[in-house]
Amino acid sequence: MSVTAAKGFEAGGSVCGIKAGGAPDLAIVTTASRQPVAAAGVFTLNLASAAPVQVSRRHLGDGVASAVVLSSGNANAATGEQGRADALRMAELTAAGLGCATGDVLVCSTGLIGYPMPMAALESGIPALAADLNGAGAAAEAILTTDTVRKEAVAPVGDTAAVVGGMAKGAAMLMPAMATMLAVLTTDAAVDPVTLQLALARAVDDTFNQLCVDACTSTNDTVLALAGGASGVSIDDRAGAHALTDALTETCGSLAEQMARDAEGATKLARVTVCGARSDAEAHMAARTVARSQLVQCSLNGEDPYWGRILSELGVSGAVFDPEAVEIAYNGIVSCRNGIAAPHDAEALRKAMAGREVVIACDLGNGSGRAAVIFTDLSCAYIDENRGTS
Amino acid sequence: MSVTAAKGFEAGGSVCGIKAGGAPDLAIVTTASRQPVAAAGVFTLNLASAAPVQVSRRHLGDGVASAVVLSSGNANAATGEQGRADALRMAELTAAGLGCATGDVLVCSTGLIGYPMPMAALESGIPALAADLNGAGAAAEAILTTDTVRKEAVAPVGDTAAVVGGMAKGAAMLMPAMATMLAVLTTDAAVDPVTLQLALARAVDDTFNQLCVDACTSTNDTVLALAGGASGVSIDDRAGAHALTDALTETCGSLAEQMARDAEGATKLARVTVCGARSDAEAHMAARTVARSQLVQCSLNGEDPYWGRILSELGVSGAVFDPEAVEIAYNGIVSCRNGIAAPHDAEALRKAMAGREVVIACDLGNGSGRAAVIFTDLSCAYIDENRGTS
Repeated sequence: MSVTAAKGFEAGGSVCGIKAGGAPDLAIVTTASRQPVAAAGVFTLNLASAAPVQVSRRHLGDGVASAVVLSSGNANAATGEQGRADALRMAELTAAGLGCATGDVLVCSTGLIGYPMPMAALESGIPALAADLNGAGAAAEAILTTDTVRKEAVAPVGDTAAVVGGMAKGAAMLMPAMATMLAVLTTDAAVDPVTLQLALARAVDDTFNQLCVDACTSTNDTVLALAGGASGVSIDDRAGAHALTDALTETCGSLAEQMARDAEGATKLARVTVCGARSDAEAHMAARTVARSQLVQCSLNGEDPYWGRILSELGVSGAVFDPEAVEIAYNGIVSCRNGIAAPHDAEALRKAMAGREVVIACDLGNGSGRAAVIFTDLSCAYIDENRGTS
Repeated sequence: MSVTAAKGFEAGGSVCGIKAGGAPDLAIVTTASRQPVAAAGVFTLNLASAAPVQVSRRHLGDGVASAVVLSSGNANAATGEQGRADALRMAELTAAGLGCATGDVLVCSTGLIGYPMPMAALESGIPALAADLNGAGAAAEAILTTDTVRKEAVAPVGDTAAVVGGMAKGAAMLMPAMATMLAVLTTDAAVDPVTLQLALARAVDDTFNQLCVDACTSTNDTVLALAGGASGVSIDDRAGAHALTDALTETCGSLAEQMARDAEGATKLARVTVCGARSDAEAHMAARTVARSQLVQCSLNGEDPYWGRILSELGVSGAVFDPEAVEIAYNGIVSCRNGIAAPHDAEALRKAMAGREVVIACDLGNGSGRAAVIFTDLSCAYIDENRGTS
């Protein structure tokens, strides 16, 4: 149920004909009442943001929304004026179908860049779906592109009766700030838009923005949250805001991990942790530089504990430290100490590298700054997936 | 003859036993007189610089050098105090063998990071090679690692009798500032060390630093230049300095292009040009962001003219422009104009993408800043090459 786990929300998904293969490609999430509720969004930082991002940003200006319409197969990006008109038309069709205001509908699209939206399919598909909201599972299915499984998560808001639920898509172009991803979260807690936005931004920063699959940031990345209040739980103090932030973070964290596990062609899930940096910011720079290194990704694919490459990437990250104070461990097995090779159990290390998950822990020995980034290996399957658009 | 094309230099290469397979792995370049001459160097910016880089930097402090000893198969990086002692010992052995001062010998190593240097091999190998300098070809061969061909180049210094000659290695981890590469250049022009350093830095900036294969910067990157003066041509005015800079740039440019053509697993050589940026610096940022994108590299591998990805990468580069003013062309065929798809001859474009070389021209429409970066596609062969260290 995920995105409808919170009381007061409905969702559905359908095949409307954007994707050539006949896979589900249209989803709607709405308040059951169709009334606008507090809403927040985090969007791609790409200058070339897609038309639906531009429309959603505008519609979020008043901090409320009733519904989200999402399509997959075509990004409606690099489509200019016509693209904006098409994204707005998607909001209009959704509003008409659901019975809410166009300005209260947010729009998300994902797929290929640079192609006009097939609006005929949406002109008939959106009204049909709005009239038959067949559930959160169908919605989560309809937003997928190269994903192989749907991503859904639910978390309680502290010890209250309220919950946060969400769905996401994303299997590549995963990069801090942000990913080629869409996510919609709902909660039945009551909260004002500003508090919701702050909580969402914090949750995204600690989850989706810690993920790095290929270091690409797309044109359409969007994370939206709607807070309806149907649980009767009200967020009106600092403790409540923390509980909501935690629930959003837990939900986003689960979705982010599901994305990493489903990453295109990946055979390994790796977490690089950096401690001992001068600041958390430098630790982040260092962890991201390691995570986005094609050579480190290749080593991971080959199950090769080549710590020399890790040290080399730390060295160009911009973080300041003494290379001869660095310690590097794979799944707790220290293979580099004081910047040089350390004696270790080679057989245990070989076994650790052969596992599905690897933790690479780097201690820069120069402070208390720390950070962690999740990434995956680079495989031929990734290249095959991304060689062509057809 | 390359690195000995300039009068007054000798070189040689041999098998000393660093590489397990018995391939050439030791080279020496020296002044024929063994006397120190003006010398300059550009080194990796990696904080974790290798021991030979640290020793060479120190020995270059006085702006002169007599010889360079280069080894391949082991980077002598992340080897700590012992590594520095070993690099210094390589200089001592070379000085003793050639009959020059230890402080006038520069040291370069390339290969795996984190392994102690096999000094027994060098203790016997360096004296033997110093006693039998068998030519520039053998030297150029001995510095290769995953390279498949040796890289050599020669250029005249203006219309004088002086020349610049050089050799290089490098087939991956090619990245602006800098590459996993070594290069040694010699000239028989007479020039003071400061002018030589400025000319070399400029040449490196315009050539090796415009190359991006996998965006990795290594621990050992080094470009050295020695200027002996045996041609009788003296660089003592601005015109002469320009002529020398041009000759160094031509030589380095040829070596850089040879490196890109020999890049690990690459099937394509691409040049991304950016114009219309607010500044050259922003144009560089934009070009580099495109060049280092795994997704763009995959598209190139698949011969897919997916301009949407190019636009997306431009959009996250940090350059400021209006996405709806952008024009993108592949080999002159404009497929994106004003930020949206442009009508074009699809068959001509298909043929252009099928070629070995592709030029991707991006006009940001926001100024006169321009830059170009050379890069290659990402292939399964690259991954295979880099999965393991064995």
